[in-house]
Amino acid sequence: MIPRYSRPEMTEIWSPETRFRIWFEIEAYACDALAELGVIPKDAAKTIWEKGGAATFDVERIDEIERVTKHDVIAFLTHLAEFVGPDSRFVHQGMTSSDVLDTCLSVQLARASDILIADVDRMLAALKTRALEHKFTPTIGRSHGIHAEPTTFGLKLAGYYVEFERARERLVAARKEIATCAISGAVGTFANIDMAVEAHVAEKLGLTVEPVSTQVIPRDRHAMFFATLGVVASSCERLAIEIRHLQRTEVLEAEEFFSEGQKGSSAMPHKRNPVLTENVTGLARMVRSYALPAMENVALWHERDISHSSVERMIGPDATVTLDFALNRLAGVVEKLLIYPERMQSNLDRLGGLVHSQRVLLALTQKGASREDSYRLVQRNAMPVWRGEGDFLTLLKADAEVSALLSDAELEEAFDLGYHFKAVDAVFARVFGES
Amino acid sequence: MIPRYSRPEMTEIWSPETRFRIWFEIEAYACDALAELGVIPKDAAKTIWEKGGAATFDVERIDEIERVTKHDVIAFLTHLAEFVGPDSRFVHQGMTSSDVLDTCLSVQLARASDILIADVDRMLAALKTRALEHKFTPTIGRSHGIHAEPTTFGLKLAGYYVEFERARERLVAARKEIATCAISGAVGTFANIDMAVEAHVAEKLGLTVEPVSTQVIPRDRHAMFFATLGVVASSCERLAIEIRHLQRTEVLEAEEFFSEGQKGSSAMPHKRNPVLTENVTGLARMVRSYALPAMENVALWHERDISHSSVERMIGPDATVTLDFALNRLAGVVEKLLIYPERMQSNLDRLGGLVHSQRVLLALTQKGASREDSYRLVQRNAMPVWRGEGDFLTLLKADAEVSALLSDAELEEAFDLGYHFKAVDAVFARVFGES
Amino acid sequence: MIPRYSRPEMTEIWSPETRFRIWFEIEAYACDALAELGVIPKDAAKTIWEKGGAATFDVERIDEIERVTKHDVIAFLTHLAEFVGPDSRFVHQGMTSSDVLDTCLSVQLARASDILIADVDRMLAALKTRALEHKFTPTIGRSHGIHAEPTTFGLKLAGYYVEFERARERLVAARKEIATCAISGAVGTFANIDMAVEAHVAEKLGLTVEPVSTQVIPRDRHAMFFATLGVVASSCERLAIEIRHLQRTEVLEAEEFFSEGQKGSSAMPHKRNPVLTENVTGLARMVRSYALPAMENVALWHERDISHSSVERMIGPDATVTLDFALNRLAGVVEKLLIYPERMQSNLDRLGGLVHSQRVLLALTQKGASREDSYRLVQRNAMPVWRGEGDFLTLLKADAEVSALLSDAELEEAFDLGYHFKAVDAVFARVFGES
Amino acid sequence: MIPRYSRPEMTEIWSPETRFRIWFEIEAYACDALAELGVIPKDAAKTIWEKGGAATFDVERIDEIERVTKHDVIAFLTHLAEFVGPDSRFVHQGMTSSDVLDTCLSVQLARASDILIADVDRMLAALKTRALEHKFTPTIGRSHGIHAEPTTFGLKLAGYYVEFERARERLVAARKEIATCAISGAVGTFANIDMAVEAHVAEKLGLTVEPVSTQVIPRDRHAMFFATLGVVASSCERLAIEIRHLQRTEVLEAEEFFSEGQKGSSAMPHKRNPVLTENVTGLARMVRSYALPAMENVALWHERDISHSSVERMIGPDATVTLDFALNRLAGVVEKLLIYPERMQSNLDRLGGLVHSQRVLLALTQKGASREDSYRLVQRNAMPVWRGEGDFLTLLKADAEVSALLSDAELEEAFDLGYHFKAVDAVFARVFGES
Repeated sequence: MIPRYSRPEMTEIWSPETRFRIWFEIEAYACDALAELGVIPKDAAKTIWEKGGAATFDVERIDEIERVTKHDVIAFLTHLAEFVGPDSRFVHQGMTSSDVLDTCLSVQLARASDILIADVDRMLAALKTRALEHKFTPTIGRSHGIHAEPTTFGLKLAGYYVEFERARERLVAARKEIATCAISGAVGTFANIDMAVEAHVAEKLGLTVEPVSTQVIPRDRHAMFFATLGVVASSCERLAIEIRHLQRTEVLEAEEFFSEGQKGSSAMPHKRNPVLTENVTGLARMVRSYALPAMENVALWHERDISHSSVERMIGPDATVTLDFALNRLAGVVEKLLIYPERMQSNLDRLGGLVHSQRVLLALTQKGASREDSYRLVQRNAMPVWRGEGDFLTLLKADAEVSALLSDAELEEAFDLGYHFKAVDAVFARVFGES
Repeated sequence: MIPRYSRPEMTEIWSPETRFRIWFEIEAYACDALAELGVIPKDAAKTIWEKGGAATFDVERIDEIERVTKHDVIAFLTHLAEFVGPDSRFVHQGMTSSDVLDTCLSVQLARASDILIADVDRMLAALKTRALEHKFTPTIGRSHGIHAEPTTFGLKLAGYYVEFERARERLVAARKEIATCAISGAVGTFANIDMAVEAHVAEKLGLTVEPVSTQVIPRDRHAMFFATLGVVASSCERLAIEIRHLQRTEVLEAEEFFSEGQKGSSAMPHKRNPVLTENVTGLARMVRSYALPAMENVALWHERDISHSSVERMIGPDATVTLDFALNRLAGVVEKLLIYPERMQSNLDRLGGLVHSQRVLLALTQKGASREDSYRLVQRNAMPVWRGEGDFLTLLKADAEVSALLSDAELEEAFDLGYHFKAVDAVFARVFGES
Repeated sequence: MIPRYSRPEMTEIWSPETRFRIWFEIEAYACDALAELGVIPKDAAKTIWEKGGAATFDVERIDEIERVTKHDVIAFLTHLAEFVGPDSRFVHQGMTSSDVLDTCLSVQLARASDILIADVDRMLAALKTRALEHKFTPTIGRSHGIHAEPTTFGLKLAGYYVEFERARERLVAARKEIATCAISGAVGTFANIDMAVEAHVAEKLGLTVEPVSTQVIPRDRHAMFFATLGVVASSCERLAIEIRHLQRTEVLEAEEFFSEGQKGSSAMPHKRNPVLTENVTGLARMVRSYALPAMENVALWHERDISHSSVERMIGPDATVTLDFALNRLAGVVEKLLIYPERMQSNLDRLGGLVHSQRVLLALTQKGASREDSYRLVQRNAMPVWRGEGDFLTLLKADAEVSALLSDAELEEAFDLGYHFKAVDAVFARVFGES
Repeated sequence: MIPRYSRPEMTEIWSPETRFRIWFEIEAYACDALAELGVIPKDAAKTIWEKGGAATFDVERIDEIERVTKHDVIAFLTHLAEFVGPDSRFVHQGMTSSDVLDTCLSVQLARASDILIADVDRMLAALKTRALEHKFTPTIGRSHGIHAEPTTFGLKLAGYYVEFERARERLVAARKEIATCAISGAVGTFANIDMAVEAHVAEKLGLTVEPVSTQVIPRDRHAMFFATLGVVASSCERLAIEIRHLQRTEVLEAEEFFSEGQKGSSAMPHKRNPVLTENVTGLARMVRSYALPAMENVALWHERDISHSSVERMIGPDATVTLDFALNRLAGVVEKLLIYPERMQSNLDRLGGLVHSQRVLLALTQKGASREDSYRLVQRNAMPVWRGEGDFLTLLKADAEVSALLSDAELEEAFDLGYHFKAVDAVFARVFGES
């Protein structure tokens, strides 16, 4: 997580201030439940909320205490006591540090999920707008980087739209994975704390209760969360690479928006680099890589070891901040993408009609020509086109053997783009619903 | 995928015979739909089912044809024609190879998912049985590998049970991700084939229809599938490592079942190595690693490139076969795990009662001792115990300052395991339902 | 490792026959050393070599014995005894299974390294030939996929050449990492075997002696080996992607060789797909992924656990066979690559000379124009070119303000490709040596 | 890279101040060479060194300029001009931004390597000291976590020593990989700059010249660098896990140093958690994970794309800072490790001598007993020991059939630890040199 690739809303989740605020809420909600159970005085719980709620926690001060106690939660509680006074002795009763730390991480990851889901929504809106805009803009479909058959630019974007719909569903599932609360004590037995406390805190924080925790919330949940982020990042990479391809000098069917003011644009008008999507490509590599340490974190020893902690201190912010940044940067690119339909058409025409050779072949066979003859006829007209000696349709019309089988109108029909676009409406209906 | 770590049922899914049978079914169902649409004769569709359905495809022969045509689907269709005869010309009309290949992969991965889900069910059954069996078997809970507080062995297993329940849900979701069918032609426009064909084949094969395919089914689906397998494997690793720890010479609270006949057991009775769980640990590393190339596969160029294919030819079988093997091996270990409650108890007693020091501390404070005094009292009795000079309870009882505050009965209560187990019923109810 | 992506020479290394032959040699050399030390009779050692050396080990038979003994080395020794007779009791004295298994793996990986190094040599030869062939073939250099400045195709290839020289050095270092021998007994103390045995076996097998083994050869060595293979595979990927880019329909500066007989070439002459390099791209993903479990294998417990074994049974063959295949496939592509200099030239000319705008800018400033004026002059001539309304050089010559500063000859000089190629000889001398 | 896991010396390398200072030096050395070539005035070069050398670059100011120009190197040059004055127009002549950026990264990574190498030296010193200290401290060797045969604690540490010696060699090689300089212009043709400039800058900065650069230094170098860091981190993990195992309550043969002041030590004297080595375990996972995006960075498009940049902005600092921290933390743990020889001895004795059963078996056979008989004799004495009914040596002595073959002295010899330690001197000589 570095400022260059960070957005404030997501970064904020990982600030010490936010963390301490969430810790406070966990402790204070737990006090409410303990007071309700009669374990601590109701007045104390009230005081804790009032004084702690009004407090501005001093990160420097807490760090200072931690340098002595070598324990982050104790340092926080000590600082909290400075605000709350004597009633602070009722805070954290029967709890273990991980009850606070792990539940806090759940809150942070759930909030991060909400932002990521909103990011995907922005992406979906952008893709839908541009897809509808170019629903019938003809463009060449490419397999292996080679011209294959015509498609529409809208159809291409519709494909990305459904991919990001899946990304959204996956993020919703990932959020559910990690939105759990554990307040169960040193080895998860609730020896020193009533299960009602966990239930109360969970409810108040919008979490579910962890069925079995062992001091820690089990890390298979977090592994699934970060693996999901890696998959979503890979979808970003696919779209980013598509745009980078489209912007290549020889292709130039689309370009990242390039503001007039950007340095050097007009003396070298060709030198507009797809740097935003290249950047997203790199960021996707990073988000993907975080899935691995998250998976290695699962196998903690017995009821817990603390090896996961250093990993999560890094990938918690790094993965969410980076994916948030990549999603937004990419959505921005889509929103403002410069799309060049004329260039798409000229690329489509580039092979002199050869992309229709399959349909001509089919038309010939349907007229009764043998497969071998049809192939020979197509081939002898295709080769000159390929060598740059003419246009496929013109040559076919001029070929007596061909025109004996197919009229000019029939040949022209074989070159009709409409043939390829007849299912576009139906596919759009699948994607965006009947309209 | 190597025979040593393979089970036949899963391996079978990836055999050429199975693949060709699925290809045949896709083609034949497509013919049904095409016949229904009037594109091909109904008799032809019938013949194709009859003759192709009865055929035994000859893998050697298909390989031989492929060596000439350099194309696997064409080789298969050529061989199919040898059975079907002239009507074979109606097969594969308007389709592209990927329609067959990708839909076949979906069928294979869906079947593999079914086996993996059944594997997890076996694991769940084993964990439940053993958890109920040892619901109240006391054992020491360990954080950082160090004795913390008592728990029960059943509670430990219940934690694994819910983890594998989550694994099951994830596999169900992963299955849904990849159980889609695409029959949409060269660049996914349905230019040469009616969408009804796709719908029919999908229904017959128990798949959903891919909303937008681009010759290929988008690979974010497969990335999510393989990432999920990596997470499930990581859960296997956690359980495997738990057992390896329990079997350590110094701990020896459980052992992998060791049949009488196994070499060398009685001259070196201590030398029973947890080789099955060590093996599972290694296999988990492999399954996890396959998530990465699967994620890198997502960003295919434009409508498709074929870089994903070599990856999937490897990880398709490797990941599913290996995880299937690991799950079964591990379930077998759990089913027959030798569990030593006496040893658990003696380990629990190992520290002379020091694991109860926290509760003594609490009891003292509750009796009105200051935190400092309580701490001093506990400490002066704990240190001799730690040096091996006595038992904690005995020393505390003999300490006048302590006994002034806590009666023998009260002290004994602080050493009562029941205190730690009072929530076990409730946690079991969460996990296994009210009983 | 699947047959489709395997070459026999490398696959052979991993066959059971080869493994058993290496095991035999390790045992037999150890016997020589033991005989020399007087631990076993010299005649026995001689008999073992004679009878074992002549034996054809029966893999089925050994598997059968292993099914009973559940131990691979014991199964082999039992089978060996069937050939050697009573003297077989002198085999394996004081040794532990890992002495044989790990030393065998070293031999296998060293042999695999030799093949990989030879593969890289083939690649280097191909790259050098093609680089010299196209030393001065002009082509456009591209940054961000956008035309930048001219370079030569030979220079591009020379860059790959030095990259594969580095790959070679890395493979040589990787070979050295794993070419070690350990015959040190159960926990590496040489309690039951003289260190001279290890030294003798190492020398005979061309290995170095492992300074400290602990039953096993430490796995940081293997991690470094497989990580190196991942890096070499990534270099393959870079070259593969370069070729895939060059073969794109819109670029078409080079093509994978496409034999006349290959299906469908002439009716769709444009549809030549770079399937070999796409395949290499996928294979590179696989080889790269194997680095991770290899690194996770390092942290074996205490003197050893066996979790590494399942990983190595898979990645040993998988990584080496796949990289060997990829290197050869890619070298073959380079050797026969169809290179189109005219197309390179026409792509170079594609922007009407705009790629020279920087040099014109420089030339104007050198003539005393202010940076602002120079920029304005270049810009006003560049924009029409970009809109397709003329050629940059022609427009500049016709611009009175420009021609007041730069003569036609000076302008032409600014468009001279030779300017860009003046260091080519010197760079080639760096790469291929002075000629 | 987060402050909690960072050391200032390494962090400093990645500060903007350091980066700008290196940029300045690259530019200034380049000016020297350009002046020498007569391209720019010698006075200008002198002024640049004087004024730029004395300057304190203002990071805020540069960031401010970058927000306008959207270009980091231009922002820096603009700021530099504010110090240097008119002569600043001679700076950066004929160079491209990557010449500065990539060469700077080389300098940073080389400096980082130097620190990492020094870290390993600290580790080596610590391991050597402790190994010599415990050269003959008996401890049980464990395979599979199960007691195997005796070894010495010094021998264990000697194994780690040679592993870190290998780590050192790998880091030296990794440093060499990335310590290269490229000043070759837009696509690496030296069109606008003399090769002598590159040579001069390289020499001054202690780098070698990159044989072929293409605007960028090829990323296979960086992939190899970061992969190497991943392997070194994995060695850290192995040692960390060894210590975590030794500190387990049931084993307790060693402990991380625990200062008196650390919270809670004496009321729960057993609860000393190996948190430092657990932390290192997690950090190793992170460093390992960075190898993957580094490998994915290799395949940049054509002469370069900028996808590598975001990755390196993250993993450059993250990988080096984290590994530096982990190495130092771990070296500190080794230096102050509390080692408990008595506990090692008592663990060694734990199985009542059963770890010597192999030697007894051997002794019996050497006395002429058949393998079957020997086995039976060992077994019938081993089983009671295993059940806790006596000591193996005592039982054997009391077994008439055994004592008929082996005298008490001979039996005692079979239990002599010296037998296992006879090669310790020789192994130490291998590792630390003859003494």
